[in-house]
Amino acid sequence: MNSLEKIGLPLHQNPSGDKLFLNIFTIRGNKTGEHVHFQANVHGAELQGNAVIYELMKTFLNEEFSGSATFIPQANPLGLNQKSGTHTNGRFHAVTGNNFNRYYLDIVKNAELLQFNLEKFVNDNGALAPYQFRVQYKTALEQAIAQYILSTQNYGLPYEKKLALILQKTAAKADYVFDLHTGPSACRYVYCGEFMRHQVVDLNFPHHLIIPNEFAGAMDEACFMPWFTLNKLLKEKNKAEMPFESYTLELGSEETLNLSAAKQDSANILHFLSKRGFFTKEKTTELLDKQYFCQLKDYKTYYSPYGGQIDYLKKPGDIIAKGEAIATLLNFNELGTGCEHHDLLKNISAEKDCLLINHSPSANVMEGAELFQVMENVQCNF
Amino acid sequence: MNSLEKIGLPLHQNPSGDKLFLNIFTIRGNKTGEHVHFQANVHGAELQGNAVIYELMKTFLNEEFSGSATFIPQANPLGLNQKSGTHTNGRFHAVTGNNFNRYYLDIVKNAELLQFNLEKFVNDNGALAPYQFRVQYKTALEQAIAQYILSTQNYGLPYEKKLALILQKTAAKADYVFDLHTGPSACRYVYCGEFMRHQVVDLNFPHHLIIPNEFAGAMDEACFMPWFTLNKLLKEKNKAEMPFESYTLELGSEETLNLSAAKQDSANILHFLSKRGFFTKEKTTELLDKQYFCQLKDYKTYYSPYGGQIDYLKKPGDIIAKGEAIATLLNFNELGTGCEHHDLLKNISAEKDCLLINHSPSANVMEGAELFQVMENVQCNF
Amino acid sequence: MNSLEKIGLPLHQNPSGDKLFLNIFTIRGNKTGEHVHFQANVHGAELQGNAVIYELMKTFLNEEFSGSATFIPQANPLGLNQKSGTHTNGRFHAVTGNNFNRYYLDIVKNAELLQFNLEKFVNDNGALAPYQFRVQYKTALEQAIAQYILSTQNYGLPYEKKLALILQKTAAKADYVFDLHTGPSACRYVYCGEFMRHQVVDLNFPHHLIIPNEFAGAMDEACFMPWFTLNKLLKEKNKAEMPFESYTLELGSEETLNLSAAKQDSANILHFLSKRGFFTKEKTTELLDKQYFCQLKDYKTYYSPYGGQIDYLKKPGDIIAKGEAIATLLNFNELGTGCEHHDLLKNISAEKDCLLINHSPSANVMEGAELFQVMENVQCNF
Amino acid sequence: MNSLEKIGLPLHQNPSGDKLFLNIFTIRGNKTGEHVHFQANVHGAELQGNAVIYELMKTFLNEEFSGSATFIPQANPLGLNQKSGTHTNGRFHAVTGNNFNRYYLDIVKNAELLQFNLEKFVNDNGALAPYQFRVQYKTALEQAIAQYILSTQNYGLPYEKKLALILQKTAAKADYVFDLHTGPSACRYVYCGEFMRHQVVDLNFPHHLIIPNEFAGAMDEACFMPWFTLNKLLKEKNKAEMPFESYTLELGSEETLNLSAAKQDSANILHFLSKRGFFTKEKTTELLDKQYFCQLKDYKTYYSPYGGQIDYLKKPGDIIAKGEAIATLLNFNELGTGCEHHDLLKNISAEKDCLLINHSPSANVMEGAELFQVMENVQCNF
Repeated sequence: MNSLEKIGLPLHQNPSGDKLFLNIFTIRGNKTGEHVHFQANVHGAELQGNAVIYELMKTFLNEEFSGSATFIPQANPLGLNQKSGTHTNGRFHAVTGNNFNRYYLDIVKNAELLQFNLEKFVNDNGALAPYQFRVQYKTALEQAIAQYILSTQNYGLPYEKKLALILQKTAAKADYVFDLHTGPSACRYVYCGEFMRHQVVDLNFPHHLIIPNEFAGAMDEACFMPWFTLNKLLKEKNKAEMPFESYTLELGSEETLNLSAAKQDSANILHFLSKRGFFTKEKTTELLDKQYFCQLKDYKTYYSPYGGQIDYLKKPGDIIAKGEAIATLLNFNELGTGCEHHDLLKNISAEKDCLLINHSPSANVMEGAELFQVMENVQCNF
Repeated sequence: MNSLEKIGLPLHQNPSGDKLFLNIFTIRGNKTGEHVHFQANVHGAELQGNAVIYELMKTFLNEEFSGSATFIPQANPLGLNQKSGTHTNGRFHAVTGNNFNRYYLDIVKNAELLQFNLEKFVNDNGALAPYQFRVQYKTALEQAIAQYILSTQNYGLPYEKKLALILQKTAAKADYVFDLHTGPSACRYVYCGEFMRHQVVDLNFPHHLIIPNEFAGAMDEACFMPWFTLNKLLKEKNKAEMPFESYTLELGSEETLNLSAAKQDSANILHFLSKRGFFTKEKTTELLDKQYFCQLKDYKTYYSPYGGQIDYLKKPGDIIAKGEAIATLLNFNELGTGCEHHDLLKNISAEKDCLLINHSPSANVMEGAELFQVMENVQCNF
Repeated sequence: MNSLEKIGLPLHQNPSGDKLFLNIFTIRGNKTGEHVHFQANVHGAELQGNAVIYELMKTFLNEEFSGSATFIPQANPLGLNQKSGTHTNGRFHAVTGNNFNRYYLDIVKNAELLQFNLEKFVNDNGALAPYQFRVQYKTALEQAIAQYILSTQNYGLPYEKKLALILQKTAAKADYVFDLHTGPSACRYVYCGEFMRHQVVDLNFPHHLIIPNEFAGAMDEACFMPWFTLNKLLKEKNKAEMPFESYTLELGSEETLNLSAAKQDSANILHFLSKRGFFTKEKTTELLDKQYFCQLKDYKTYYSPYGGQIDYLKKPGDIIAKGEAIATLLNFNELGTGCEHHDLLKNISAEKDCLLINHSPSANVMEGAELFQVMENVQCNF
Repeated sequence: MNSLEKIGLPLHQNPSGDKLFLNIFTIRGNKTGEHVHFQANVHGAELQGNAVIYELMKTFLNEEFSGSATFIPQANPLGLNQKSGTHTNGRFHAVTGNNFNRYYLDIVKNAELLQFNLEKFVNDNGALAPYQFRVQYKTALEQAIAQYILSTQNYGLPYEKKLALILQKTAAKADYVFDLHTGPSACRYVYCGEFMRHQVVDLNFPHHLIIPNEFAGAMDEACFMPWFTLNKLLKEKNKAEMPFESYTLELGSEETLNLSAAKQDSANILHFLSKRGFFTKEKTTELLDKQYFCQLKDYKTYYSPYGGQIDYLKKPGDIIAKGEAIATLLNFNELGTGCEHHDLLKNISAEKDCLLINHSPSANVMEGAELFQVMENVQCNF
């Protein structure tokens, strides 16, 4: 019913000469309105967002809505194609080791370099109506990124940087940005900037990591920081703030695609957008009783104290009491040299009360390996 | 209660100069008897056998038995240590690509080279009592392998070959050999030589692949072929055949360790050995109603016709009718160029009635990737 | 001047949905004649053949010749694209570990399966003129491969097999086949079937490995075996043998492209083809004084007895006397525990007089690593 | 002649249970004096420093000197052991992608957390003699690092962080620190903090990168920043500054070990230390005519504009004029579709006059790959 546009952007040339394309799909509703940007699979093994985009597109194609939506599934073709053994080794670039989610541009910090003068922008455009002001601001953001890209033409650009800039530039026209990731073996959770912590509940996700209103390299931060900074300035000037939200959604475990779970993921996101006024007919979802929140500083990683094989005794989403065993590690090396058979298993126990968010997808770990990540000082329905 | 001996064999020197050891544990009962050999984790990601060995050792250490047992957990330290991303890439050697389970020695085919003259052996030792005959034969096998190792000293030996020869030499003294593997995402199944197809039922495993009585590179075949060949000759001479069995056991999925499942795996193996007379007190297990069998020629691999992300609709162990969808593949490339949204999903369906044994551990596949392996022409309680 | 045809064959679909293409270029001369097939880079890191094809095409495009030539540069796009760190890990498939040069079809051994009855073929076509007979035979070979490919459609085909079959099918129309490889850190050498050992001298290469007239998995063998077998039969029947030659050329070291060296490589190959009657105007090259030959059984690999770092004291092409040090290995582990500083270096010396053909491209090796390959019992101008 | 002490520190436990050790060798002269710290091979493929340490130890063991020296060859055993294909993939951690040279501790920035109060330290120890003051300061640095390590015990520590902290803690007692690296395919060059640019000439290296007096993650910076900061404070207080120098030395190309080149590398370093008063008998070296210098901001990386295979036309150390071709790239994809054969080669040319420092070790590159690094605005004998 609604119109679909596809842009097949030549993103990258392989050593073989074959090209990888970024497919950018845009669906426009029959009325003007806000713009939402979805991207999935920036880490090569994090697949579920593709299924969620598949589900979301079904609704956006077939139901009446205002505004427009951009979808970039399989957003990192190089990362997706990095197979090593049967697994996908797409968290970092196989040549450089660079994490694909750390090369977005910090527009605020590089404002001078980018000739992006926020003060001047607000002064020049202060008289515009809010909608027009937002359109102008988005254009300014897009131009800043385009200018930066231009400045790199002579010496070239590494893939991870080029990809990040294209994604960020595409998302510059959005009012809402969703970057769809997954954890390793994980439950569902959201990275949420401190300033959006009351809005995020509309997403109906069970777990939330509240991150500082700062740029630390990721897409959500790269997108919200220019708006967060703008709003701080507008507030100082006693002007109305502009709506903008961007989130990183963690949709369960990597290396899996589950179309039926994607229906629920999609329902949650549509419910959020429905509350923002996208759909003519309200979209509902079955609301959770409990949502859990934790500050980033209380999000703790356990690193393995030994090498060996692990039985993960707890599942993502489990609540664990201080001192409880989270996992047991087996290793035969010491057996027969002072160590008895019944001492072969070693427990790894909770330092504090916590909620298990994810654990390693492999039971085979070296010393120092990330075993699990937990939320401490968790608050419920915060 | 029973005695435990540990040999820490320096197997390999890393580029850093640090060494990897093979830990060989032997437990001896209080009466003489037969010998059973267990090894686990020859493929680096196939971990569950370690947990099963842990469970088995508990029984062998604490219960009265006749004979002796050798255990080699973590039998391929180089393979175990080959991490790539969070996963274990230990199916093949990271430098050479060689599959770690293909470098055993074909004693029968290389009999001449190894000066292993079976005809002469039977003639020379024909007068011995069966137990003594077996002892002599094991010694001859061990010497043949030792001699082969010696012949490689001048130019050296690649790791995969050295490891295979040490394992095979250690197992030469066994009457029963268990090589503990796992599938990718898999149910439990056994590779069983044709000649043992009536004995294998004692293992109480749900699925069996009947393989030819031939050497194709794997440990079980390397071990049983010299005995199978001996028994053929003994039969021709109207002499009593010698008992010998060796199996490859596939204990579920790779990259996981499940101690509670290991208790059931161990119970099945102990029940088998109990039937062979190892334990003073009979060991029982809860017997399955159904065991399924299929010939190796009917064990089929499906290779992906496309690249994309897969939702595996069926689980290992599922029985599937011809034409039923086993999996659905998602890929956005064609969308917007003649392909409609509702045509994005492509089913991969069963060519024939079959039983799904395993599927790839990753939903992210290239064209030509192994998707699943199925048994066709399955027989039940065969 | 001569006509160029390009076929861009869609070979493979990546997980991202992007495709890899096999580019097959054919140049036809102005007169009919024989057909020569070139392919390069079947192992992903073996690049020099691409430069040689670039040079060869220049001549075939611009000079008068009889017959036709097919060129497949970058013949394994998946292998080429398998980067790991800065290096190319394209010797084996990153998912399966399978060596890309081992999946050609043994037409002779599978004659029955392929309904390829050589005896019947000779009887049916015995009356044809030699040129027509050859055309018919090539067609029969091509059909046998095509039929095999067809038989795999239902369950699909792994990449390495699909690639090998397409290359072999394309080469079925050739009278001369050149598979362009390189060694690790290597000099130039040729793999030459025993039956061609007097013809190979026309290639003007310095070193030759004489391999048995057997199929062991490689392209050259896959191509020559059906002709070698045919000629054996023709000889038995007192009929004239058919000309056919296929070689694996090793063009120096992997991971390098040297356009100026490619001019000499190309000149040698053109000289060979000129002797076979391809060019109107004779092509010459500066002939070597010495060519060295060795049987495959005398081609020895040294595996490292230790882990450590290596100073390769000898260069590919060097002649080494028994007992001479070929390399020195450094490792600090034992220092300070009975080992003195001056004993830190350990020599690896020649077991016999030999000619060094290649060594590992890395000085950092584990125990059991392939260090170098040497020719023993070398003959000169054989 | 001089005493050698070895500490074999258990650094890491592999999944197999086997351990990797850090070997720390200390040689003490017969008189007290300053301390020099050497470490090599923190990146797994950068081997030459091991050979240089081998040479340096020879001198320190056998010649009269004042003070002491610590040597940590093969300083990153996990990185060294990360083989992928024949190459060493040890620049970043194979599981996390983290660069091994980026996890040192910024003591200055984390002064508060570490309770490392520089102002207070200077006030408390201001009355000490310079030598005693330095000893105290080194102890304070060592304790700050030790305290930080202690604070990580509960949740554990990833390998790259643990290694960096142990190296940095060991080096805390040094007055001179040399971190021995190599480039990819590279000439010899030094990373030199701005404040040491007049001292570095004693090293007799041909090329120098002048880096800001800042912490950007590397060992040299981690070591010099606390001393640089101290000296700024001492200067403000009109007190004498303390001698301290730390450098990253790039010793040619990765993956190679060259014992004879190591003699020259060692001679240069010994000459430097001789000028600092270490040796009773002066150590000389053949001094270079020219040393080249460039600021870090003028150190430019060229990223490949295409995928393909590269002929590097220039060698590390070459001086190149603006517009000159540095490399030529070959790719056949476009041939036959509007692109003629003579247009297949594409030059990559110098944007400005420059000096080539290194290029990729592989000729096979994807678009966006680092091709080479050059110095622009080079100064000679600066």
